[in-house]
Amino acid sequence: MQLYNYFRSSASYRVRIALALKGLSYDYVPVHLARNEQLTERYGSVSPARLVPLLQDGEASVHQSLAILEYLDEIHPEPPLLPADPLGRARVRALALDIACEIHPLNNLRVLRYLVGPMGVDDEAKNRWYRHWVETGLEVVERQLAAQPSTFCHGERPTMADCLLVPQIFNAQRFQCRLDHVPQVMRVFDACMALPAFDSTRPEKCPDAE
Amino acid sequence: MQLYNYFRSSASYRVRIALALKGLSYDYVPVHLARNEQLTERYGSVSPARLVPLLQDGEASVHQSLAILEYLDEIHPEPPLLPADPLGRARVRALALDIACEIHPLNNLRVLRYLVGPMGVDDEAKNRWYRHWVETGLEVVERQLAAQPSTFCHGERPTMADCLLVPQIFNAQRFQCRLDHVPQVMRVFDACMALPAFDSTRPEKCPDAE
Repeated sequence: MQLYNYFRSSASYRVRIALALKGLSYDYVPVHLARNEQLTERYGSVSPARLVPLLQDGEASVHQSLAILEYLDEIHPEPPLLPADPLGRARVRALALDIACEIHPLNNLRVLRYLVGPMGVDDEAKNRWYRHWVETGLEVVERQLAAQPSTFCHGERPTMADCLLVPQIFNAQRFQCRLDHVPQVMRVFDACMALPAFDSTRPEKCPDAE
Repeated sequence: MQLYNYFRSSASYRVRIALALKGLSYDYVPVHLARNEQLTERYGSVSPARLVPLLQDGEASVHQSLAILEYLDEIHPEPPLLPADPLGRARVRALALDIACEIHPLNNLRVLRYLVGPMGVDDEAKNRWYRHWVETGLEVVERQLAAQPSTFCHGERPTMADCLLVPQIFNAQRFQCRLDHVPQVMRVFDACMALPAFDSTRPEKCPDAE
């Protein structure tokens, strides 16, 4: 398998964690988002969506980090990224989507660029925007973890939700977001970071880290 | 089942379509997002995430539209919202996520409110923002549909991807977005709208429509 990846992309980090949890090896193919390498014709021939991360598995090619995690869980089921019961699966997916749909899209590179470019927003307002969505979005996760606490987001081993949570906290820390209001989130983050699958794949340990 | 819903929420519309495709009946519980009813303590006791849509199924309670669609597909498998093969499933999920993660989060009500409120953006710039993400985001979907054309987003019957595509086009039309650059998308939209599951659940046919 080849993973098209950028060290600082938190969606890429989600996939690196999942591959590590499953003990799957892969070739790391760097795509430099800050230099717009994902928009080149060359990358377009690999990925019609021109998004990173992208997983190539023989003839198969899958983009969107959550679709990649579901794909990996279907073709390499052990250890599972989702619990066995439909309601547990729904809870894990909802937690993952609370991050993937409510926080991360507002703060990714192309959105920040549009704010400071065409929208003419200054750096300070851009950082307030970033922190606002992280801090309010994590409250939504916090309430759910507090309502049903466990070692990881759901139960006693990491799931898809933890693959999303950890990269989001890395982003939050990079932008000096407030995190003292989400103690359950941070407790789960610490539990994850004690595991090699989360620690060995962190951004600064990637081959393309700067 | 009870569906907590708002007629104009496109995430709610996704779930209405899926329930209709599967022929499942439910009680429609309106939650008025424009009046912030989702933020009340009363709704908080139903949904810790305080997001709409929310599906209640006996004791079970599921939020996040994509998690609801996956849940429905697991407990009511016929007709399926996902193809049978892992690669087809990944393609459908990626298309759904291209809308759910790359377009819709940038344009939902609370984001538009933050732009015109704390960010001090005027109405014209807000509308340009809205159209920018719809128009560029739909290009990503268009390229994938053009690369592998079929009656619906994937194959000859509607899937989860179509449940996401149609509400996004309703939003695009409401904000006068350009759509002539995405002919494959509009061809699929028309094919969907010819089906009662998509037409009978459109926003203006909801009990709480204004």
